[in-house]
Amino acid sequence: MSFKALTLWLWCIWLNLFDLSLGAVRHYKFNVQYMIHKPDCIEHLVMAINGQFPGPTIRAQVGDTLHIALTNNLFTEGTLIHWHGIRQYGTPWADGTASISQCAITPGETFHYRFTVDRPGTYFYHGHYGMQRTAGLYGSLIVDLAKGQKEPFHYDGEFNLLLSDWWHESTQVLEVGLSSIPFRWVNDPQSLLINGRGQYNCSMAANLINTTLPQCKFKGGEECEPQILQVDPNKTYRIRIASTTSLVSLNFAIANHKMVVVEADGNYVQPFTIDDIHIHSGESYSVLVTTNQDPNKNYWISVAISGRETTPQALTILNYKTVPTTIFPSSPPSMTPQFDDFNHTKAFTHKILALKGTPPPPQQYDRRLLLLSTENLVNGYGKYAINNISLVLPTTSYLGAIKYKIGGVFDQNPPPENFSTDYDIFNPPMNPNSKTGNGVYMFELNHVVDVILQNANALNGKISELHPWHLHGHDFWVLGYGEGKFKASDESKFNLKNPPLRNTAVLFPYSWTALRFKADNPGVWAFHCHIEPHLHMGMGVVFAEAVQHVDHIPGSCGCYRI
Amino acid sequence: MSFKALTLWLWCIWLNLFDLSLGAVRHYKFNVQYMIHKPDCIEHLVMAINGQFPGPTIRAQVGDTLHIALTNNLFTEGTLIHWHGIRQYGTPWADGTASISQCAITPGETFHYRFTVDRPGTYFYHGHYGMQRTAGLYGSLIVDLAKGQKEPFHYDGEFNLLLSDWWHESTQVLEVGLSSIPFRWVNDPQSLLINGRGQYNCSMAANLINTTLPQCKFKGGEECEPQILQVDPNKTYRIRIASTTSLVSLNFAIANHKMVVVEADGNYVQPFTIDDIHIHSGESYSVLVTTNQDPNKNYWISVAISGRETTPQALTILNYKTVPTTIFPSSPPSMTPQFDDFNHTKAFTHKILALKGTPPPPQQYDRRLLLLSTENLVNGYGKYAINNISLVLPTTSYLGAIKYKIGGVFDQNPPPENFSTDYDIFNPPMNPNSKTGNGVYMFELNHVVDVILQNANALNGKISELHPWHLHGHDFWVLGYGEGKFKASDESKFNLKNPPLRNTAVLFPYSWTALRFKADNPGVWAFHCHIEPHLHMGMGVVFAEAVQHVDHIPGSCGCYRI
Repeated sequence: MSFKALTLWLWCIWLNLFDLSLGAVRHYKFNVQYMIHKPDCIEHLVMAINGQFPGPTIRAQVGDTLHIALTNNLFTEGTLIHWHGIRQYGTPWADGTASISQCAITPGETFHYRFTVDRPGTYFYHGHYGMQRTAGLYGSLIVDLAKGQKEPFHYDGEFNLLLSDWWHESTQVLEVGLSSIPFRWVNDPQSLLINGRGQYNCSMAANLINTTLPQCKFKGGEECEPQILQVDPNKTYRIRIASTTSLVSLNFAIANHKMVVVEADGNYVQPFTIDDIHIHSGESYSVLVTTNQDPNKNYWISVAISGRETTPQALTILNYKTVPTTIFPSSPPSMTPQFDDFNHTKAFTHKILALKGTPPPPQQYDRRLLLLSTENLVNGYGKYAINNISLVLPTTSYLGAIKYKIGGVFDQNPPPENFSTDYDIFNPPMNPNSKTGNGVYMFELNHVVDVILQNANALNGKISELHPWHLHGHDFWVLGYGEGKFKASDESKFNLKNPPLRNTAVLFPYSWTALRFKADNPGVWAFHCHIEPHLHMGMGVVFAEAVQHVDHIPGSCGCYRI
Repeated sequence: MSFKALTLWLWCIWLNLFDLSLGAVRHYKFNVQYMIHKPDCIEHLVMAINGQFPGPTIRAQVGDTLHIALTNNLFTEGTLIHWHGIRQYGTPWADGTASISQCAITPGETFHYRFTVDRPGTYFYHGHYGMQRTAGLYGSLIVDLAKGQKEPFHYDGEFNLLLSDWWHESTQVLEVGLSSIPFRWVNDPQSLLINGRGQYNCSMAANLINTTLPQCKFKGGEECEPQILQVDPNKTYRIRIASTTSLVSLNFAIANHKMVVVEADGNYVQPFTIDDIHIHSGESYSVLVTTNQDPNKNYWISVAISGRETTPQALTILNYKTVPTTIFPSSPPSMTPQFDDFNHTKAFTHKILALKGTPPPPQQYDRRLLLLSTENLVNGYGKYAINNISLVLPTTSYLGAIKYKIGGVFDQNPPPENFSTDYDIFNPPMNPNSKTGNGVYMFELNHVVDVILQNANALNGKISELHPWHLHGHDFWVLGYGEGKFKASDESKFNLKNPPLRNTAVLFPYSWTALRFKADNPGVWAFHCHIEPHLHMGMGVVFAEAVQHVDHIPGSCGCYRI
């Protein structure tokens, strides 16, 4: 126990006297607790909020302050919630990331998140402690434009679909398998869920057109009954689609209908028309669908695995109100691209560009990190590493530790900013061993930072995995994607004119992805692969920006223990 | 955040400068983590210590100080360990009871238990947070006499058997069922374990004499292989038997062999001979067995459910070294008393008396509590209540809160000391509703306290349940057991001459149990039903004794959060 810790304590006393209350405030009470439920018609434990799975949808307007009083009613587990896509300007302590912005809320305690939503868009929230997202701790967060303001596209109605994956094993069993020798991979999920609803038995059926299967008949009121999208003919609907999957990348399609993509991760994109979208964990989109097909039919909406093989698709129905919901579609769901057809997902990804009129990114950078993602071993345990360091989070939060200069919390040596130029990304690592670490990349306020993510071969075999990387507290411009190993000449291919702003970007197999962002948000921010088992195995880094400018850390003070 | 909390903080700084180190110190590192294991031959998650299930056996000598550095390597759960039967004189902060002696240790943290074992005997340790005991967090703790000292009985060798019950559902599923509407009882365990080993498939077989069943053949090295007790003929063995069951009461027998009971809960008892013993959760015994049977045979050792119906018995073998271990016993296991034969268990219990020469209890009491145990509803949730209050523990520890006068932690009104004289214990409660509470019974130093536990009819039907009540920080004298409702005239039946000293005593259906103890141990102590689901549902009270005399609370200081 140091003088610094005492300083922290005194800060806390002082800060708790204050309460931010700017603008309209929306109050929510979130009670996190386990519940027995049937997400895919099979009974399982889920981590629910207020008895709901997924948790309640938060719907707010730009400029609102959300006050979410989160009470932990789990039995022995800590918990917290991250508000994915909300940049948390001025409220980095409310980002809800364990060991980074706060310590986990202990059972019986209530933590008060207070933050402003400053931008319209399709967001979601989820647990960010251990693998509680895999356990079902998530929900939607939709921010509408302020009254009187208009989106740059027209629609007559909207739907919101939160996509996730689901296992029949308990999350603890999955977690312990990842942390064991011998290593046990989680394997593919048993089901995919649309708004927390899937149909395991029914999805397992070879041909879903066969309506005689009793498990595919729903009387109504079942917990796993699909949520049917009821539409009028000849209208345009906005469908918000977000993926909070633990593991898998998804392909979303509506049979016989084209989609126009208009939003990605809360940013408007230049509209483009497509048959199906690829959505990776951590991403969100809005698409416009015009109901211009035969109004005497219903149509399959399908969510299928892209990049993996064994999990059956999730299905629901686009129901033209002109026919009953009970009429099964007469034509099959859209064909899903082959699981290893990365060209299809790349083609989709490359189409995403900023809406015309969006200001371009800074043309120069102040600092550039080259981050090599590898699969490794640490003392024989399976891990992921970035520049050969596998992230193991400390028990005290970085934000409190840096702000209050508490020593001994994390490694004061910053992690490496690049990797050996002779690293062979096309083969398994020569030396499979990495080490654990918890150092921090520190950025000066308003510096423009480039991150070049570099993918490589996995630990064994001839394979390279896909990783959707998510940045907290910011959007970044996606300057480009490229095959193979990044080289100086690749910079000439960067899109500095209309790159999309996003909070999540894919790193394709054997490829690189170039990102740029402005370190304009004092705080400490996670940057990590959004595949939860990968993060659990160390695939992340920590960015700290001008923490001396953070002047208000309520609640997380208690994080520091003697 | 109050001035008192600041005082607490300053205390902590001061106290952490000190380190008790009187006498010989035994150091242990306990690493609590989940492990995939096959306790009963079926794969399941277990809460292990140092990769072992049950945790390592601690073996110490009277006068030793144990220093156990407990590191929480769970993913998102807090944890702690209670040292069951160790009175913790002078170290109430090391009792390891969540919300009472300390807050749970958070993931990644290490807590240092330091306490003296001042008395020989058969003890054990276990999780005391949520239902982590049910999850497998337990192990044995044996204290031997100091060198040169002798037990008041002879034996040539010894064995140690820790008994437990095991479910195939996850502990979280069991817990959430108990906390749900509709209520889901845990139901009977799938298996009984002897030193963490059971044989589900084999035990399910109707007749275990049938050696042709492949699942009953062990090649050696299986995680669920029974631990065979190898003995020489014509010797006397001490068998230590402790029950850390979550739920069930057990009957222990060795076919064809008598047992002499010599120890109960770390206290010597007047030896008596018996065919089988009844052991309830929280109890421990030592029995002496003389190997005076046909040395050309092996014999079944059986652990069977007493008081419940469906779980098959656990078996192992008493192997006379004169024959191979692989020879199956030629005679069946001992007959188990009928599950509802309470007379059998009562007859056994009444035989337990203090060893001749043990000082008698105080003949007078200073204070008497009458505690009525009932099954109730609170807002429709199934609960247990004591004098109509169902215990819900606070988030800050009582010990810290009382010592440092932190307000707002628990109800300052003490709970009721008795119950309505016209309560009908033979029928379901007239009013099923109780309320939750967390008040404390405060005792003056060295006061002699009587507790009369009163059982009653359950919430529904014509049934009354058995509850083994366990007191922390003390032994109590069991002054007597009686049928029906306790009345003044029952006091004349109290045994004030040679009542046994124990830390756990049974409250039989529709009965009362009278206990006496001396409040000679400054601290805060749980007194509760040792059936973990019952405690989870509120069946406990909190005793505080002269907390002003407690002068050293390291480590638990961090419990208080802003």
